[in-house]
Amino acid sequence: MPLLEETLARIVPPDAGARRDAAERQAQLTKPAGALGVLEDLSVQLAGIARTCPPPAPARPVVAVFAGDHGVLAQGVSPWPAEVTLGMVENFRAGGAAVNVLARSCGAEVVVVDVGVASPVAADAVVWDRNVRRGTADLRTGAAMRPDEARAALEVGITVATELVGRGHDVLLTGDMGIGNTTPSACLVAALAGVDPAVATGRGTGVDDATLALKTQVVADALARLAASGAGPAADPLTTLAEVGGLEHAALAGYLLGGAAAGVPVVLDGYIAGSAALVAQALAPEVTAYLVAGHRSAEQGHTAALAHLGLRPLVDLDLRLGEGSGAALALPLVRSAALVLAEMATFDSAGVARKEA
Amino acid sequence: MPLLEETLARIVPPDAGARRDAAERQAQLTKPAGALGVLEDLSVQLAGIARTCPPPAPARPVVAVFAGDHGVLAQGVSPWPAEVTLGMVENFRAGGAAVNVLARSCGAEVVVVDVGVASPVAADAVVWDRNVRRGTADLRTGAAMRPDEARAALEVGITVATELVGRGHDVLLTGDMGIGNTTPSACLVAALAGVDPAVATGRGTGVDDATLALKTQVVADALARLAASGAGPAADPLTTLAEVGGLEHAALAGYLLGGAAAGVPVVLDGYIAGSAALVAQALAPEVTAYLVAGHRSAEQGHTAALAHLGLRPLVDLDLRLGEGSGAALALPLVRSAALVLAEMATFDSAGVARKEA
Repeated sequence: MPLLEETLARIVPPDAGARRDAAERQAQLTKPAGALGVLEDLSVQLAGIARTCPPPAPARPVVAVFAGDHGVLAQGVSPWPAEVTLGMVENFRAGGAAVNVLARSCGAEVVVVDVGVASPVAADAVVWDRNVRRGTADLRTGAAMRPDEARAALEVGITVATELVGRGHDVLLTGDMGIGNTTPSACLVAALAGVDPAVATGRGTGVDDATLALKTQVVADALARLAASGAGPAADPLTTLAEVGGLEHAALAGYLLGGAAAGVPVVLDGYIAGSAALVAQALAPEVTAYLVAGHRSAEQGHTAALAHLGLRPLVDLDLRLGEGSGAALALPLVRSAALVLAEMATFDSAGVARKEA
Repeated sequence: MPLLEETLARIVPPDAGARRDAAERQAQLTKPAGALGVLEDLSVQLAGIARTCPPPAPARPVVAVFAGDHGVLAQGVSPWPAEVTLGMVENFRAGGAAVNVLARSCGAEVVVVDVGVASPVAADAVVWDRNVRRGTADLRTGAAMRPDEARAALEVGITVATELVGRGHDVLLTGDMGIGNTTPSACLVAALAGVDPAVATGRGTGVDDATLALKTQVVADALARLAASGAGPAADPLTTLAEVGGLEHAALAGYLLGGAAAGVPVVLDGYIAGSAALVAQALAPEVTAYLVAGHRSAEQGHTAALAHLGLRPLVDLDLRLGEGSGAALALPLVRSAALVLAEMATFDSAGVARKEA
């Protein structure tokens, strides 16, 4: 069986018994029922994923930053030059980017995966060479990549997730780098969450009104091209991905599937991750049970993507950077949710009186 | 000069030059301008407080949990028995409460300050005996405490902040414990933020509709009593505090003032801290420049309190526990904001191309 199909077959629902145990334990801890809000729901999710209660607190986080370039940049959808993708890969390698700082702050390792950078990238322990293609083609005028390339990039993501879990990482965080990559994200969100291009398209790293209008038209044109090709997006997420996606989007979708198949939680960063999660969800609906939305991006289509995924973001601070920054910021909240379940006293153990009935 | 007045005189505005340097540095870091959202504003605030750029990342956090009891409990405003305050103090001492778990998770120490618990509490290194009065009187029928008691409790908070900063703590987190303490909080918010008792009064740790109606009436009655006494709340925050506040509210207000006077950031927990911050703001408007809103409580009046303080909460996850839980959850975000400014590369240092003009 091909790796993708084999991975999809390995994704099973989280354990209902562990979830039930976690919900019951939350009710016995020394606090009013529900007083820890979203953290309680998160603890139940983590117990289900770990298939035991209390779940271990994630101790060895890793951020995989998938990097790729985008032919659609030729349309003028971003004010940033394409070489910034490579420049930022080198910045990640040197440890000077936001994701490096935020990952260090939460104790996470960073690996960078070149799945689609346009120029050659030197490989080492930090930057992995898994290049499938040196950047996509222009998705406004034709398919961004061939179906076999989309599949290969997806399988890169699966393999990376499997390798990282194999090295002992117990929670995976998503990251991305690719100048122009909010445009394919908007295409994926429009196609897979069924929202209008005007809703799915945002200002990315800060485009002006004229560029936003152009970008929205590019997304609308790509969607029209996809519809004309006769490929129903919901029926065939792989075709949608190949036609209007990006190489890092494909790899991210695979990374989510690989993480879920390996039974670990995956913390999503922002809009790029959200759009990739829609691809993963279309391939395996149960994958969302393994996903934690790290944050809500200021990129306007992200809210629609999160709604379609059924996820509530943990951090909501107007970030619009990508790289994995929002996922890294959320990690301490994920860890805390697990620790509460493991370490808090119960009313009985602490001898504290309960609320009157 | 009395300690309170001496402390108020020591609070100076944060350093404008360091704030300017931080804003300029943010614009040079390898990311689009503004892409780290609220974290960028927070880094500027921290630079101003530290009076240097980049500001040191808070390395020695401490949560002070101020505990007190409330005579208004006799009105039936909470389903929890008063002895839970003492029970939870013992739970804090043993390390089994939510705030203990969340403080450990972010590397913070916990100290518990008995400023108004109704029964005697054993003192040790964790639980400090600074009891001013064994619980307040019923604020519906008369003053919660005498003016000199309110002042003494305020000065307990100042002294605790000063001691903790003297021990090397470089960021103070607020915590509270007191069965019934959302009722005096609602009174303070109604009086000092000028909102209706129906807006200021919420469900606390989970009261039913009938209790919520009763609690709202209790708050309205207390406010009417305060108005009839002829004391204008804005004109005299100390009188407001004595008439309708709580001992832990007074101590928390002092703790904020003491932290600001010592030049360290103070991370607020939820509704109790927010209402105490209104007292501190009324005494010294510039104190808010030193405050970080850790989270937005599910307690409905908290949003009005934050608006009056001009603070945006970092965490917004439907928590309604108190103890310092929301402040502890926010601390990694505060630390990350400082680290970004100190550790990220600039476009020049990393040799990354900039956005086209």
